[in-house]
Amino acid sequence: MNAQDVAAAVGRQMPMAERFFAELADRTRDGEGVTRAAFSAEDQVGIDMMAEAGRALGLEVDHDPAGNVYVTLPGRDRSAPGVLTGSHFDSVPRGGNYDGAAGAVTGLAVLAALKEAGVTPACDLRAVGLRGEESVWYGIAYIGSRLAVGSLDTAELDRLTRGDTGKTLAQHMRELGIDTVGLKKNGAPYVSTANTKAFLELHIEQGPILVDCDLPAAIPTVIRGNMRFPYARCIGEYAHSAAVPRSGRRDAVLAVVELIGRLDALWQEVEAAGHPDTVFTVGKLYTDATEHAMTKVPGECRFTLNVGGTSKEVLDRFRNETLALTDEIARKRNVVFELGECVGSDPTPLSDLMRGALRAGAHDLGIPVAEIPTVGHDASIFARAGIPAAMVLVRNQHGSHNAAEAMEMSDFSEGAKLLAVAALGLAGD
Amino acid sequence: MNAQDVAAAVGRQMPMAERFFAELADRTRDGEGVTRAAFSAEDQVGIDMMAEAGRALGLEVDHDPAGNVYVTLPGRDRSAPGVLTGSHFDSVPRGGNYDGAAGAVTGLAVLAALKEAGVTPACDLRAVGLRGEESVWYGIAYIGSRLAVGSLDTAELDRLTRGDTGKTLAQHMRELGIDTVGLKKNGAPYVSTANTKAFLELHIEQGPILVDCDLPAAIPTVIRGNMRFPYARCIGEYAHSAAVPRSGRRDAVLAVVELIGRLDALWQEVEAAGHPDTVFTVGKLYTDATEHAMTKVPGECRFTLNVGGTSKEVLDRFRNETLALTDEIARKRNVVFELGECVGSDPTPLSDLMRGALRAGAHDLGIPVAEIPTVGHDASIFARAGIPAAMVLVRNQHGSHNAAEAMEMSDFSEGAKLLAVAALGLAGD
Repeated sequence: MNAQDVAAAVGRQMPMAERFFAELADRTRDGEGVTRAAFSAEDQVGIDMMAEAGRALGLEVDHDPAGNVYVTLPGRDRSAPGVLTGSHFDSVPRGGNYDGAAGAVTGLAVLAALKEAGVTPACDLRAVGLRGEESVWYGIAYIGSRLAVGSLDTAELDRLTRGDTGKTLAQHMRELGIDTVGLKKNGAPYVSTANTKAFLELHIEQGPILVDCDLPAAIPTVIRGNMRFPYARCIGEYAHSAAVPRSGRRDAVLAVVELIGRLDALWQEVEAAGHPDTVFTVGKLYTDATEHAMTKVPGECRFTLNVGGTSKEVLDRFRNETLALTDEIARKRNVVFELGECVGSDPTPLSDLMRGALRAGAHDLGIPVAEIPTVGHDASIFARAGIPAAMVLVRNQHGSHNAAEAMEMSDFSEGAKLLAVAALGLAGD
Repeated sequence: MNAQDVAAAVGRQMPMAERFFAELADRTRDGEGVTRAAFSAEDQVGIDMMAEAGRALGLEVDHDPAGNVYVTLPGRDRSAPGVLTGSHFDSVPRGGNYDGAAGAVTGLAVLAALKEAGVTPACDLRAVGLRGEESVWYGIAYIGSRLAVGSLDTAELDRLTRGDTGKTLAQHMRELGIDTVGLKKNGAPYVSTANTKAFLELHIEQGPILVDCDLPAAIPTVIRGNMRFPYARCIGEYAHSAAVPRSGRRDAVLAVVELIGRLDALWQEVEAAGHPDTVFTVGKLYTDATEHAMTKVPGECRFTLNVGGTSKEVLDRFRNETLALTDEIARKRNVVFELGECVGSDPTPLSDLMRGALRAGAHDLGIPVAEIPTVGHDASIFARAGIPAAMVLVRNQHGSHNAAEAMEMSDFSEGAKLLAVAALGLAGD
């Protein structure tokens, strides 16, 4: 089956994909956006819809012990390592419908297209619906893919706590019927180099670059790493805002402001020194609503630090400077910083071979693409587990992690066609 | 009656004062501290206890149209302007028991002492229990005293809204049985130069200076003014924290951090230039808990600005620099600042004559005192209404506007004795 025929078959699945997106949004709507917490009834909606769609297509459906769902189009050689594609169903609170779900639905559409075209690939082609990718729920990212490849210590299930519910990941899993006792037995990883020879992930871009360049899709060159302090705080002392002179103050806000201001300056320095793709974000910053007042010196301030980049040296420098600056500021301003755990990931290279296959597919289909770094995705977890990985980014509007996130189905279709051609090529057909 | 006898009579009221404080705390306790919202059932507890205590002593008790309570020891000339003393019963959320209440209880103790000693002063001596002094509830301070002297536009009753309940001041007043229709008729002020020749207020220090100097009390030289933005916010745009490069960001937190950092630098500059009693506080600083995430560029950040000082020029400079800096930062960082209303008060001089009376009393009683500037108090409202005013500060531990605020009854007793001697002197005895 040539590239044009594969693309045409994928194109015929777009009405199914569009219905899937619409139903998923309807069933997980939260105000203007959608909320699908990691390992909740809401990301389970996506998991269940994918399983049901797979069964309706006559494909094999199974779940791994962590509750991720797999749909399989059997290949001619069932024992050969297969090609896996997919992404996650969970979202940030009041986020968009496509961040994650677009990749899972792509997997389903590609398999449906090949199944309906009567194609039996050389090896199994599998689509996966993952969960727990967004770090907002438990403070760490990629929980589903890490459990699938066996790179998350299952003791974490009882340690990780969801900020808004106060319950552990294990508790939330059990509420979904996931057998956490079985999961903790640490058998062979469900996904490994033994059964998977390539991982392909389609994801919306989440940034403005493809819109600005007027291109429908991109082939990422590398996955950015990040360095994060999800639960940092500064502790000072509450005091009357007017009666206490500077010498007697232990002002948590001014200490945190100095830290953030100096890290912002470091960001500018690093950019100017040749790392223009570094990003620095303080997404959460807050005094204690039960204690703070305009007329009180603030005794506590909580915040997050989040640095992304393609250079491990830059990420390390931010971590080291954060530690040095908090020491200095704590002494100077008579406060205490509790930075909490530092989490993150090193920048992850993507497979040259697979990027070549995607580039060739784009050429064959006449789809113009950019080649740019991307942000952290589940693909990085498979790559670090030794499974060659690559990605397709699809142009989208209004960024992501917000309710206004949007995507044109015509762009999605281009991305899905490109992924299908590359997947079939990687399978050996 | 000489100063020593007056002091002895006041000393005999200390058990009553201590019981009053204990019952007031018990009835308004909130966790470790007390919460007595302005114009709520909780500051009403103080108002009612004071009325009841006044009646039990055989003193006259009345309320002004705003719900402040007055207890009167009639003088020989009932038509002569009287001497008024007191302070407020409301507190900040989870604040201390003495910030405000100490001054109202002092008034009661002084009147009780003179009544039980059989003293009839030359003119009426009145003790007042005020409410609505703390700005945390409605964004402005001194509501009770402003209504008493007629310096608050009563149209504000329907404009001012309590942040936590969303209800207007007028609604809360009506719930307490206050006749807001009558209040709005704007008759002659309840307290004016026609009926009051002096206002004396005892208040805890709220700062560490008397503890550091090992002195029981102070006579303030001037009341600091302040310049405040109670409801400022910065609006940017939520976006993916890693996918959007700096040029596409509208980061509300980094914009607010730059503003606060530069105002902190201005504070240091102003101090070094000869205004060491300037204070700058950002008591509240917060991203939106329903939207923010570690992985989102923050699209909104709210904050308060609060500058105190004894120089009007310094306060004006902070206001002007705040306006100039927000303009500059908004352009540079592509955000919008909505500073909201700027409220505050000019520094207020205290009466030289009355300070002299307090100084003489301290000398006669052998009470060592400091003379230092103080922060905003109800006394400033009476002073600005043309009624000569002065204050006594009492040493206290652990500052104020927090649950750990403390005060020794022995220090309170020294302050109350000093105030009683001065009040009787000012009455003409």
